[in-house]
Amino acid sequence: MNGAESLVKTLLASGVDVCFANPGTSEMHFVAALDAHPQMRCILCLFEGGATGAADAYFRMTGKVAATLLHLAPGFGNGFANLHNARKARSAVVNIMGDHASYHLAYESPLKGDTAGISRVVSHWTKTCEAASFVAVDGAAAVTAAQSMGGQIATLILPANTAWENADAAAVSAAPAALRRPTIDRVRAAAQTLQTKGASLMVDGLALRGSLALLAAKIAKKSGCALLAPFFVSRIQRGAGAVKFQRLAYVVEENSAVLKDQTSIVLCGAKRPANFFAYPGKPSLPEPAGCAIYDLCEPEMDYAWTLHALADELGAHHITLGNEELQPLALPALPSGAMSLQKVGEAIAALMPENTVVVEEAITSAGAMALATRHARPHDWMMIKGGAIGGGLPMSIGAAVACPDQKVLCLSGDGSAMYTLQALWTMAREQLDVTVVIFSNRGYQILRGELANVGVTDVGRNAVRMLDVAEPTLDWVALAKGHGVAGIRVRDAGEFVSAFQGAMKQKGPFLIEVMC
Amino acid sequence: MNGAESLVKTLLASGVDVCFANPGTSEMHFVAALDAHPQMRCILCLFEGGATGAADAYFRMTGKVAATLLHLAPGFGNGFANLHNARKARSAVVNIMGDHASYHLAYESPLKGDTAGISRVVSHWTKTCEAASFVAVDGAAAVTAAQSMGGQIATLILPANTAWENADAAAVSAAPAALRRPTIDRVRAAAQTLQTKGASLMVDGLALRGSLALLAAKIAKKSGCALLAPFFVSRIQRGAGAVKFQRLAYVVEENSAVLKDQTSIVLCGAKRPANFFAYPGKPSLPEPAGCAIYDLCEPEMDYAWTLHALADELGAHHITLGNEELQPLALPALPSGAMSLQKVGEAIAALMPENTVVVEEAITSAGAMALATRHARPHDWMMIKGGAIGGGLPMSIGAAVACPDQKVLCLSGDGSAMYTLQALWTMAREQLDVTVVIFSNRGYQILRGELANVGVTDVGRNAVRMLDVAEPTLDWVALAKGHGVAGIRVRDAGEFVSAFQGAMKQKGPFLIEVMC
Repeated sequence: MNGAESLVKTLLASGVDVCFANPGTSEMHFVAALDAHPQMRCILCLFEGGATGAADAYFRMTGKVAATLLHLAPGFGNGFANLHNARKARSAVVNIMGDHASYHLAYESPLKGDTAGISRVVSHWTKTCEAASFVAVDGAAAVTAAQSMGGQIATLILPANTAWENADAAAVSAAPAALRRPTIDRVRAAAQTLQTKGASLMVDGLALRGSLALLAAKIAKKSGCALLAPFFVSRIQRGAGAVKFQRLAYVVEENSAVLKDQTSIVLCGAKRPANFFAYPGKPSLPEPAGCAIYDLCEPEMDYAWTLHALADELGAHHITLGNEELQPLALPALPSGAMSLQKVGEAIAALMPENTVVVEEAITSAGAMALATRHARPHDWMMIKGGAIGGGLPMSIGAAVACPDQKVLCLSGDGSAMYTLQALWTMAREQLDVTVVIFSNRGYQILRGELANVGVTDVGRNAVRMLDVAEPTLDWVALAKGHGVAGIRVRDAGEFVSAFQGAMKQKGPFLIEVMC
Repeated sequence: MNGAESLVKTLLASGVDVCFANPGTSEMHFVAALDAHPQMRCILCLFEGGATGAADAYFRMTGKVAATLLHLAPGFGNGFANLHNARKARSAVVNIMGDHASYHLAYESPLKGDTAGISRVVSHWTKTCEAASFVAVDGAAAVTAAQSMGGQIATLILPANTAWENADAAAVSAAPAALRRPTIDRVRAAAQTLQTKGASLMVDGLALRGSLALLAAKIAKKSGCALLAPFFVSRIQRGAGAVKFQRLAYVVEENSAVLKDQTSIVLCGAKRPANFFAYPGKPSLPEPAGCAIYDLCEPEMDYAWTLHALADELGAHHITLGNEELQPLALPALPSGAMSLQKVGEAIAALMPENTVVVEEAITSAGAMALATRHARPHDWMMIKGGAIGGGLPMSIGAAVACPDQKVLCLSGDGSAMYTLQALWTMAREQLDVTVVIFSNRGYQILRGELANVGVTDVGRNAVRMLDVAEPTLDWVALAKGHGVAGIRVRDAGEFVSAFQGAMKQKGPFLIEVMC
């Protein structure tokens, strides 16, 4: 067995059986090894950002590590933006990056680059294999590193000679170290704080869905505090039966308004809220002056245990939740007439099936979608947690591979979708059940607003030409067709309803371009 | 004036008047400043890799620095691969990367990332502005850094507050420091070496075209040595009247064959040749055992002066070059019948006008194109000097902006073109005179060969699915249409001739998909 084979066996033995790949020359032995192990599902992406975004979403939906296979430094660079999103989402991802044979690095070849350097900028864990006989142990350590601290980016650099030289047995990843916990004294102090006037509990991560979200809601109800969640989430449960969170906002003033009556914020698995960007004369932080921040449990600590301990302390476990805390089911009527974002949202709310996985990168169109769907059938909602554009289409790949029996709905701005449109091809190749809705406003709509925010209202040619995606307008139906995905352009609400109804009834990829 | 305005004025005063841009929120003050200065030509790319590849080629064709405008860390990541190519091509590029306001970095916002860290992996020069009043001086220093050492990547990180706070006057870049030169003793020794049996002179960079190429040819003729050039070149003059170089090769065995009779290689502005990758049991270096490497002048040194000094030493200035040293004009007949790469090359050779700028990323289809066009009308030829896929379409943008009166011909593999296909939109937006020829072999043809190279001949499902870009096949005419570019698919030589003839006669972007 060579090093590459020992790595594939190690990944499989460690529970990693999906690999989103965009290989190059230096990874050919690894490709050969994958070829000999059909139990590893290899999914080709035509751009590395597709592979990294897919691995991120795969983890968010399954809690399982996927591998990516990336070409040496520039290839990793292509995957960087979605690794940034994955890092912020605390997703566990193992990247396998090829490199030149170690002895070849003495010479200047075109593709020689700083593989470890670019990895370290975004990975929590980076290791360059030193010999074929170490590949198995290093691969197992990469899986453990990815699974540690609640989810990390681990990158194993595989010089070509460590892939082709002889190796011994495969290895199996060890369980990650136990997560740190706050002291019980700190839990008690937090429980006291939560019962004071104007207190709030802010959660994130796994506490935005399922039993942990319900537990957080019980804690909030018992203690009488507000229950906060960030604006950018990795994955949140929404629709009927989902916990009502007070979500923070993107716009500075709206963010401040959400927190205006808070006297304290207890953080449990959440980072201290901060505005997305700073602006002249506006605050970086959304909470009012004097609001106390109580950092009970960092996101990389054991916030599940901590929520249970808080509930114990407050006697909240047996609280009954009702309409005050949970979203009702209330489906809107199907809209008709002229196009509006609200109507698109209503149609989606009325028609999307239970357990739809919504991948949302719709930026300025997102608010209307979120509002309209809050009482829809139960569904999951994912966002670009790191704010890096180009996550939506790739994440949809990962979600669909993770959840083959659930409909994936990708809501994307046209500007955003252009960053990684190659992901459409992988949807066609793998016949993934993804409906893509492109909001075609022919520009970076959010930047038009941001330019006004910095005081420019009389816009000239240079600015218009940097913020508009027009002249020519993109034709998303043609772009989809080019990648092997069928699509339709819709101009009014009735056309959208008809197209979306059809998409919900079929399996496989389909694209709807909404002219808005 | 604010910091952003002082930067725009500084760039203009320093001769930088083209900006390839993909801005985000943190760059809005810079966008506003650009808007107030219409003498700066701003060209929007829908993906950062388009901007960086364009800036690279703009320098290669003009010798002038272009700026890029990139969003903070993940945006820079998207531009990383083509900055790698630019670095290896020794192109002078100034990147302006936005960042959070410096005081905002105390908090964890989604897009917070290591801007300086990712820059340093690929940039020769990285600086984070510390105050608005320093922006002009830092901007001027960035231009000087880019122009130093024969061409460098300089990245200026502009925290948002340094863009919006008050600044003083603009600055002007200083001339770069003089390039180092070898001692005259070393030049004399090299001249001696060149006159020995089996000697060769290897050049690169500016010595692959124009008067320096002619001078190198005279030196070779006078001393009786071979004249070598690398396989991957940033820009080489080809066709009638161009110097005949012995080019190194991609394939290890071919590379060794080129050098098999060499006893010494004098490097002047070129790096020591090394094979593109290492393979089991094959050498890293192409020269035969015992061949002496004489590193006369590093690429970042003054190799123009050094070539003149060598010519002085050898008395080579007045040598007359003839058919032995220069390519003749010999246009092939127009082909017809079934499609072949050779016929496509012949049609291109017969039809492309004088001074065409060929941007070639055709990988496995490239050899036939290069062979067929060697006696065509005079033209330039550019390649992905760093070997990072996805350079061809973006570089075509930069070449067309640089040379509006010359036809740009982009030759690209289908797999390669998919990495940065968004560049097509910028061609349409700017009505750039680019003819794109896509060689549609529906796969990573080079990797099929590389897999065979590592000994895998019985290929299974995983390997096939990672190397084939089929099921579904890409439709490049639809992809072009989606971006606003007209195109045609051709299936035989006659169809190619007809399509290519039309493309040569018109101005503006056009795409030809060659089914091969």
